[in-house]
Amino acid sequence: MGNKRAAVLVAGSWGTALATVLADNGCDVTVWTRRAEQADEINRHHTNSTYLPNVVLHERIRAVTDMAEALIGADIVVFAATSSSVREVARKAAGCIPQNAYVVHAVKGFERDTLKRISTILAEELARPESSIVVLSGPSHAEEVVRRCPTTVVAASMSKEAAEAVQDYFMNAYFRVYTNPDLIGVEVAGAIKNIIALGAGLSDGLGYGDNAKAALITRGLAEIGRLGQAMGAQLLTFAGLAGVGDLVVTCTSRHSRNWRAGSMLAGGMSLDEVLASMGMAVEGVGTTRAAYALSRRYGVPMPITEQLHAVLFEGKPPKAAVEALMGRVRTHESEEVAKAWLEAE
Amino acid sequence: MGNKRAAVLVAGSWGTALATVLADNGCDVTVWTRRAEQADEINRHHTNSTYLPNVVLHERIRAVTDMAEALIGADIVVFAATSSSVREVARKAAGCIPQNAYVVHAVKGFERDTLKRISTILAEELARPESSIVVLSGPSHAEEVVRRCPTTVVAASMSKEAAEAVQDYFMNAYFRVYTNPDLIGVEVAGAIKNIIALGAGLSDGLGYGDNAKAALITRGLAEIGRLGQAMGAQLLTFAGLAGVGDLVVTCTSRHSRNWRAGSMLAGGMSLDEVLASMGMAVEGVGTTRAAYALSRRYGVPMPITEQLHAVLFEGKPPKAAVEALMGRVRTHESEEVAKAWLEAE
Repeated sequence: MGNKRAAVLVAGSWGTALATVLADNGCDVTVWTRRAEQADEINRHHTNSTYLPNVVLHERIRAVTDMAEALIGADIVVFAATSSSVREVARKAAGCIPQNAYVVHAVKGFERDTLKRISTILAEELARPESSIVVLSGPSHAEEVVRRCPTTVVAASMSKEAAEAVQDYFMNAYFRVYTNPDLIGVEVAGAIKNIIALGAGLSDGLGYGDNAKAALITRGLAEIGRLGQAMGAQLLTFAGLAGVGDLVVTCTSRHSRNWRAGSMLAGGMSLDEVLASMGMAVEGVGTTRAAYALSRRYGVPMPITEQLHAVLFEGKPPKAAVEALMGRVRTHESEEVAKAWLEAE
Repeated sequence: MGNKRAAVLVAGSWGTALATVLADNGCDVTVWTRRAEQADEINRHHTNSTYLPNVVLHERIRAVTDMAEALIGADIVVFAATSSSVREVARKAAGCIPQNAYVVHAVKGFERDTLKRISTILAEELARPESSIVVLSGPSHAEEVVRRCPTTVVAASMSKEAAEAVQDYFMNAYFRVYTNPDLIGVEVAGAIKNIIALGAGLSDGLGYGDNAKAALITRGLAEIGRLGQAMGAQLLTFAGLAGVGDLVVTCTSRHSRNWRAGSMLAGGMSLDEVLASMGMAVEGVGTTRAAYALSRRYGVPMPITEQLHAVLFEGKPPKAAVEALMGRVRTHESEEVAKAWLEAE
């Protein structure tokens, strides 16, 4: 990676962590941010204290506020904005991305009004085929990646060549990248797991215990898979790193913002109070709205998403929502695998 | 369940928790234990303090040391012994179980020398068809069940009638039971997850972080599914409560004995020291030996089991084992789902 140039848009915690991996691999990394003070802090002090407190950044990471400057000569461009701002960032970047640069994103969510996946947004704004876009996802808290804790992720793309190129850019001793052809599955899994994490935070905040949380995670995985399949994903993806791996880390780690937001809601804070106190995006909130609409569009039952929607936007008390989830089984409900009996009868 | 009688063999933490559920549902429950003092404590003080400290047991739970007395008139018999003692307990019980009684087990492991599943052992000793046996499994720490925390489990059996009858015995507001026809899958999942939990404890004990643990859980799920399929299980079972649900709770909960044993090993204690300090069975240790043999018998790669086997029985340092697991991918390895590319080529 000696003379390769990478551009990362924007300088949030995950963007900064990915910039760190690329810098460790020998890339010259430019991160783009709207905020001059943040660029200044990164360039002068090699810190990004709002997003990653107590971390010293790699010297090869440089920050700029000028988009054209960020993208000059870039061999790889990484979108790490929020789902609500990625279209605007892409529009700004569109004219400046070198034609042969790889385009990667690490954004987890859907566009609010259109319900589009992030790759679709990027394809539209950058006038590239969606098949050339690569998504990077998996169980990977930024706080651990910048400390070089062992982490495994998936680089998914319809283009094997693009996925493998991106794998080469990011792969190193602590950051292991697997390729996967199921772009849709990886994007859906990465988005919906934040809803389940909100639910896990609610359950934990109400003191329901680890048994209940494990049940929620299991049902959440089924719910993610159902929507994913309806949208064209492969079921196996949800058993992989971007599926169950990311779901587990988001629902059980103290680093998870979505889990924390859920547990604050359980404690009686309003959604506005929670969002104000977080200071960073809580993707699960917007994703709940989008997934609720997607479940209707595709006719897929998503009970956890439905209960979260009721809590976040319809004033349902968290306790009533979690109880509805735990108590929703009938007396003789069987797991889905029970089809075997039906076929035998 | 007004006049139903249940027998639970033996009075460990999980047996006592299941006895609690049955007593809450109106059953007269007799637990059998070898130890007169333990029976005495349960009958006089309604406590079982070695296994479930600070818990007052249901008054309808009675303990006896005489096996025939435990089983007289039993409508349902629940085996909750360790995998290493269940054959002996079953042999003792064999002559005394009423012919129409349902036989359930909640044992997680394989028989050490024969590598047999628990249902096979019970079928042999009780001279019943294996198809009549029901296994109860899922994310269910005993400590939470006796406190009536919401818990969901699976009752699996080749017999739908038996599974549904057992569902009826156990189902209540806090203990939700789903039926599942895949007896083999549920037994394999319940056994192998203890190995992955040992590995998760090693990883956490060495300070590898949540990203690494999530990767381990994901690969563990794949490893469980591979062995299960080779033994005749259905893959979908591993995405359910007895699969991913139980795996997650065992790898991430502070209640998990196998996780704790792994983290102690990481801290430098010897296996003998760990086992002595636990005072209760650590099923993952024996299961590692059995699964290691099973992976050879069925020709199924089980890298986590292999590394754990090296740590537990071949003196490999925990750090070297976890590093072998994290670093084992090649540069261009793709997730299993990547078959789609191969087919497209």
